[in-house]
Amino acid sequence: MLFKVEMTVNPPSHLSEEEFNAIKLKEKNYAEELQREGIWVHLWRVAGLYANVSIFEVRDNQHLHDVLMALPLYPYMNVSVTPLCQHPSSIK
Amino acid sequence: MLFKVEMTVNPPSHLSEEEFNAIKLKEKNYAEELQREGIWVHLWRVAGLYANVSIFEVRDNQHLHDVLMALPLYPYMNVSVTPLCQHPSSIK
Amino acid sequence: MLFKVEMTVNPPSHLSEEEFNAIKLKEKNYAEELQREGIWVHLWRVAGLYANVSIFEVRDNQHLHDVLMALPLYPYMNVSVTPLCQHPSSIK
Amino acid sequence: MLFKVEMTVNPPSHLSEEEFNAIKLKEKNYAEELQREGIWVHLWRVAGLYANVSIFEVRDNQHLHDVLMALPLYPYMNVSVTPLCQHPSSIK
Amino acid sequence: MLFKVEMTVNPPSHLSEEEFNAIKLKEKNYAEELQREGIWVHLWRVAGLYANVSIFEVRDNQHLHDVLMALPLYPYMNVSVTPLCQHPSSIK
Amino acid sequence: MLFKVEMTVNPPSHLSEEEFNAIKLKEKNYAEELQREGIWVHLWRVAGLYANVSIFEVRDNQHLHDVLMALPLYPYMNVSVTPLCQHPSSIK
Amino acid sequence: MLFKVEMTVNPPSHLSEEEFNAIKLKEKNYAEELQREGIWVHLWRVAGLYANVSIFEVRDNQHLHDVLMALPLYPYMNVSVTPLCQHPSSIK
Amino acid sequence: MLFKVEMTVNPPSHLSEEEFNAIKLKEKNYAEELQREGIWVHLWRVAGLYANVSIFEVRDNQHLHDVLMALPLYPYMNVSVTPLCQHPSSIK
Amino acid sequence: MLFKVEMTVNPPSHLSEEEFNAIKLKEKNYAEELQREGIWVHLWRVAGLYANVSIFEVRDNQHLHDVLMALPLYPYMNVSVTPLCQHPSSIK
Amino acid sequence: MLFKVEMTVNPPSHLSEEEFNAIKLKEKNYAEELQREGIWVHLWRVAGLYANVSIFEVRDNQHLHDVLMALPLYPYMNVSVTPLCQHPSSIK
Repeated sequence: MLFKVEMTVNPPSHLSEEEFNAIKLKEKNYAEELQREGIWVHLWRVAGLYANVSIFEVRDNQHLHDVLMALPLYPYMNVSVTPLCQHPSSIK
Repeated sequence: MLFKVEMTVNPPSHLSEEEFNAIKLKEKNYAEELQREGIWVHLWRVAGLYANVSIFEVRDNQHLHDVLMALPLYPYMNVSVTPLCQHPSSIK
Repeated sequence: MLFKVEMTVNPPSHLSEEEFNAIKLKEKNYAEELQREGIWVHLWRVAGLYANVSIFEVRDNQHLHDVLMALPLYPYMNVSVTPLCQHPSSIK
Repeated sequence: MLFKVEMTVNPPSHLSEEEFNAIKLKEKNYAEELQREGIWVHLWRVAGLYANVSIFEVRDNQHLHDVLMALPLYPYMNVSVTPLCQHPSSIK
Repeated sequence: MLFKVEMTVNPPSHLSEEEFNAIKLKEKNYAEELQREGIWVHLWRVAGLYANVSIFEVRDNQHLHDVLMALPLYPYMNVSVTPLCQHPSSIK
Repeated sequence: MLFKVEMTVNPPSHLSEEEFNAIKLKEKNYAEELQREGIWVHLWRVAGLYANVSIFEVRDNQHLHDVLMALPLYPYMNVSVTPLCQHPSSIK
Repeated sequence: MLFKVEMTVNPPSHLSEEEFNAIKLKEKNYAEELQREGIWVHLWRVAGLYANVSIFEVRDNQHLHDVLMALPLYPYMNVSVTPLCQHPSSIK
Repeated sequence: MLFKVEMTVNPPSHLSEEEFNAIKLKEKNYAEELQREGIWVHLWRVAGLYANVSIFEVRDNQHLHDVLMALPLYPYMNVSVTPLCQHPSSIK
Repeated sequence: MLFKVEMTVNPPSHLSEEEFNAIKLKEKNYAEELQREGIWVHLWRVAGLYANVSIFEVRDNQHLHDVLMALPLYPYMNVSVTPLCQHPSSIK
Repeated sequence: MLFKVEMTVNPPSHLSEEEFNAIKLKEKNYAEELQREGIWVHLWRVAGLYANVSIFEVRDNQHLHDVLMALPLYPYMNVSVTPLCQHPSSIK
């Protein structure tokens, strides 16, 4: 089941650059792992913004919730979720 | 070059159902052709809405504009365009 | 899988009262059928508005989409969809 | 009398994780008590967000106000309130 | 139980002035009746706008809904509803 | 001359609970005094929110401004002002 | 007593150009009369828009309401009203 | 050349009351000077808000920018700018 | 003096395609004339939208207003105006 | 390929004036370099605001992203990006 998730990162001013870089590294590792598992199926950067457009393939709403809540950057992001389904004109 | 395009259809009240169905059929044919050409690379329905989330791969902004303006449903849609690029955590 | 769906009805000015009443009767029958099937699990009126707050239990996003698109009043409504899941403090 | 209440939690940056966890534990206990009393009749998590959709059954507006103001997390939440009533197509 | 209700009238262009005046007369009569019954307890015009700010005293949400839906001008208004209760600094 | 004033309180995080309580006590005293003087003619709590809906009767815009600016909580509130007048359907 | 009033004109599509010109002429005459009476004290065009920024000096809210409701273009305008008073740094 | 400028002051929490009063005094002096020079031609307080509505008469956009940027309170204000011109119904 | 002007065209449903094409041809001629006169200094299409981003160089606000109001498409456009000036980091 | 980029600067309160001036100097140098390279083709100040309207000419979305992310002021700005293309009425 597919969801579009849009995330915008708001870097916290109360963390040092080192602390924030450590969180970003964890995020990168977690994102790569989810991609290899086929859960985070697309991940694009929005040009000019510290934001991404993502497509997740998950078992259900709960699965999506658990995956997103585990994002190391979650506390520093605005997140919006849009459930997707098959489009009648899609040839896939 | 990738763009996210979101389209919401507002069916016109001044067209008959037949006229509007004829336009939707042209749209479907055009959408399938663009998918086969590798230009409309993803096309998802937003669950519960007469709307889609799409990813286009085009040569440049002009190419995107020409492709979108030729959509038979274009006069009956709200369209938003977001330029995308490579995300540093993407493994593709 | 649960979704909150909020619907606001915008009665069309180009339909006669009879025509619109016929659509509302079909809507009522369809809504009752979906409730008996356990798909439309809650249906509340928003006090003072021609709107409702609803909870649907469906198999997946596609199922939700198909159920909503079949609503006879769908062309005359604004619809918003929110995916729900288990709350850690819920005792159900 | 039913109300939909939507709550979004904004974790405060000036509290330690321990302090905030203590508040969240009080919230959980209070939420469970209100559920057992039949006041907080539904409590769902919004998938992907630190937010909930809730249905409260209370005696009147004042009762709702007193119940919400006593939420330990209240100072860290955005809250919206929508009065509900019987829907003519509901079979309950 | 008190509610603030704000109403903005959008005069319909498809009605003749006579037809609309007939509806406004019914509205005036109904409003005066509800005021005499102690249900529509305050009714103020917003200066410069075709809008009002009103306070209703009703038995419950359902009562409010039934009263508002019966307004002859309801189909031509935007309505917003806010539940009120006792303020701790009020001396009434 | 009547005005609707809506106030939402944003408790400041840089004040101690004691300091803020002292300000709230001054506010309560001032609000009660204005009510006894017939200036703050209605004061309702919005159910579920740290907010109020108020009606002020003042000599003119300047009087309203002076009264509101003297509110001890003013620095911690969002305030909106709406000028009111006689409604043609009001029986008062 | 001063008010800022902003008006944006939405020319109606269901009137002929002649009919609308007749209304605009009445509006012009009425506006000039109110200016000569010292009620409509300033009237500026917003550059590039079919809109104005105006300052009215009136006896009270009711007077403002009566003056604005009598504008021949009122049914074709969006209007916003802001009560003004003396600024402590004004030298007038 | 005329511009409407609206300014809302957001008093900074990181300045002492003395420091902020010193800035406000400079602002008052500067505002009075600009008024005497015929640049800040109108200055009204918005009733109930820490905000003003102003009319500036300047040589050009650059002049407006330089005048506004020199406001001592500028760093603590939200500012909006609207270019004005002659209204065809103005008798001035 | 420079202004950014953004225009979005809303094709009117009550005009025939021929009538609207005639207006668009007049618009094109007028736009080209203003460009040759050095008034409409930049004119870009927004990719994917029936909209443009434009830069006008005019004598003053009044000149801008007169130029825009003479656009044949003006009645069918949403227009926003932003006054510009020299940027301190610009090397032009 | 052209993009309109709008930037609004929010000066950070946690930096000293010296530190922020150092960042602004780097920004100025970088902006001048990008202008000399023909990448930042237009740079205008919005009159009255700490904001700019810019036109960038870049190879593709990725190029735009890399150029913007390298702005020394980027962490202190709100940025919006609009892809542009040739307008059919442009004579350039």
